[in-house]
Amino acid sequence: MTVTSPKGFRASGVTAGLKPSGKPDMALVVNDGPLQVAAGRFTGNRVKAAPVKWSQQVLTTGALKAVILNSGGANACTGPEGFQDTHATAEKTAEVLGCGAVEVAVCSTGLIGERLPMDKLLPGVEAAAKALAADGGEQAATAIMTTDTVAKNAAITSPAGWTVGGIAKGAGMLAPGLATMLVVLTTDAVVGQPLADAALGTACRYSLDRLDSDGSMSTNDTVLLLASGASGVEAAADEFIAALTDLCKDLAHQLLSDAEGSTKDVAITVSGAASEDDAVEVARIVARDSLVKTALFGSDPNWGRILAAVGTAKAPFDADAVDVAVNGVWICKAGAAGEPRDLVDLKGRDVAIDIELHHGAASATIWTNDLSHDYVHENSAYST
Amino acid sequence: MTVTSPKGFRASGVTAGLKPSGKPDMALVVNDGPLQVAAGRFTGNRVKAAPVKWSQQVLTTGALKAVILNSGGANACTGPEGFQDTHATAEKTAEVLGCGAVEVAVCSTGLIGERLPMDKLLPGVEAAAKALAADGGEQAATAIMTTDTVAKNAAITSPAGWTVGGIAKGAGMLAPGLATMLVVLTTDAVVGQPLADAALGTACRYSLDRLDSDGSMSTNDTVLLLASGASGVEAAADEFIAALTDLCKDLAHQLLSDAEGSTKDVAITVSGAASEDDAVEVARIVARDSLVKTALFGSDPNWGRILAAVGTAKAPFDADAVDVAVNGVWICKAGAAGEPRDLVDLKGRDVAIDIELHHGAASATIWTNDLSHDYVHENSAYST
Repeated sequence: MTVTSPKGFRASGVTAGLKPSGKPDMALVVNDGPLQVAAGRFTGNRVKAAPVKWSQQVLTTGALKAVILNSGGANACTGPEGFQDTHATAEKTAEVLGCGAVEVAVCSTGLIGERLPMDKLLPGVEAAAKALAADGGEQAATAIMTTDTVAKNAAITSPAGWTVGGIAKGAGMLAPGLATMLVVLTTDAVVGQPLADAALGTACRYSLDRLDSDGSMSTNDTVLLLASGASGVEAAADEFIAALTDLCKDLAHQLLSDAEGSTKDVAITVSGAASEDDAVEVARIVARDSLVKTALFGSDPNWGRILAAVGTAKAPFDADAVDVAVNGVWICKAGAAGEPRDLVDLKGRDVAIDIELHHGAASATIWTNDLSHDYVHENSAYST
Repeated sequence: MTVTSPKGFRASGVTAGLKPSGKPDMALVVNDGPLQVAAGRFTGNRVKAAPVKWSQQVLTTGALKAVILNSGGANACTGPEGFQDTHATAEKTAEVLGCGAVEVAVCSTGLIGERLPMDKLLPGVEAAAKALAADGGEQAATAIMTTDTVAKNAAITSPAGWTVGGIAKGAGMLAPGLATMLVVLTTDAVVGQPLADAALGTACRYSLDRLDSDGSMSTNDTVLLLASGASGVEAAADEFIAALTDLCKDLAHQLLSDAEGSTKDVAITVSGAASEDDAVEVARIVARDSLVKTALFGSDPNWGRILAAVGTAKAPFDADAVDVAVNGVWICKAGAAGEPRDLVDLKGRDVAIDIELHHGAASATIWTNDLSHDYVHENSAYST
């Protein structure tokens, strides 16, 4: 149930010594074909890490042989030298795999603003190539972890005979623009590049792009899809899009549940909006409100704070018509107090907030976390 | 140095029993004239508390005799009944002062979503009227406190012979749209309504509206200016605008320093922007970033997080040209590491973050706080 579950892929995870902890820090995913179809989505942040700039460039061909990934350093805000480091990493990977550097995407994650130790990283590429295995997906998932406490793997097999699989990392700065964190998806379905790209776009739109743990957008977010065609089965477009979306939702929820210092997984669903974009806007504003998030940490069904956040949205609706439910109890009706708040049970980790705008037929869900002491602790102590 | 420092005003602060703590909870500010010029600015939140709706309505006349204020309840999201409570409060105040209800603005602050105990509040209006005194400003400032730990008072006297004074409250939900929290400003200068309104708009724009402690916008933000003309001195427009702006900056900084759980007062100045609006956008994004705010709590000059936040702005600039200084040390030059971060001293409460976009001549400053354990603690435990 990982990135090597589909046929035609090998992967590995090794320790190059980039992390002071000595934990695994380099991963390699290789597509052995016969196809080398690829698609990608990247951070909407204008401050893009060197590996993002590189991978965007090589993906213009719509094909990839491999993805080399490292934790222990984001290689973001590192100037032209940082880009040269990424280029050298791709060259080295191409050399050991016997392909061209333009067939190699690069992903990095870790601290922003520091150069990577290339004297350790380049030997790490060789070690990763030597460790490649048809069941190496879970090792790869482990090697891309930063503040993650668990590795994220998933796979779905279609009754038609093809499989989609993936790995992901991400525990902080979790508010993707077009994609989130580092995610490598694979499939052995026979798919053309246009379908691979469209399916990835749709899958991200309804999963990773709706994840907003802490409102902060990374400089390194990358989602890559590699298709080997090794199952020999051509995928029906709608079925492939649905499976890839389900796979990304699975990975997104694994990211959500492991978000830094979180104690709640919160699904904010806005209904009755005039458009889906309006529903996303309102849900995202609530997901990013510190007072709502601290109230959830305190297991406090504070609908007043939810309504105050809703009131700052631009989407059209009548503020005096809004209903709010927390875990199924409609504690706010028509912009004022509704059912008794004592009825709301917030003891569990899962929280559902439903906001009905009564202004249309569109809806959307954003997934977020609470704001806890541990979030403050982890993020005030991470780099020092 | 308070709201009664200008001539022609009386004020009071009394205990009506709205707060479980038994602390003062009602304040009254009365303009004895000869002028009754007034202007106001209100929250940009579409979810507006009943007293905001009332005060906006009565201010269309451009004149006010008095402002009645209560803490211990925001009277927000309370439906038509909540508006009737505000109306009854204004009527009662008018009755005891011998004026019309349309001459009385109402301000409320406290928890959202609960009705006010009118059986305690209406006798409180009578008590506040009886306690009115020419030196009652500081009592009024104390009576409007909620989670504030200190009362906020200020006054400035012009060499020309007139004075501006004010009181303010606010410690959380501190990210005003057009105004912030509850602020009552007074002056004995002779000013017409158009100048009063224009001066208040400018003063808010460069002070209270640039305060963004936690990104959450209140339902009750109200700033009122009352002019008595009692000094008999006509104010020069530019001098009056400057004095009122300085007064509001003073009050804004008092709000900043007392923000819930904060350990840092942070001035984020963006320069080299194409327009002032662009500079405000970039500064506000940085001010609202949880990862930047937790890093500041940890006294960590994490310029990577600052740059990652800057990168999500819409304002035009080249991400590879941006410089960032923390407390005067340019630790980021041209989007990459600059001077050593060890040179940055973050031991004190005041932090200056300077962001140079190199894309124009406009600049702006937003004032914010860090995100601390105590912020999470106070806001996860406030209503339960």
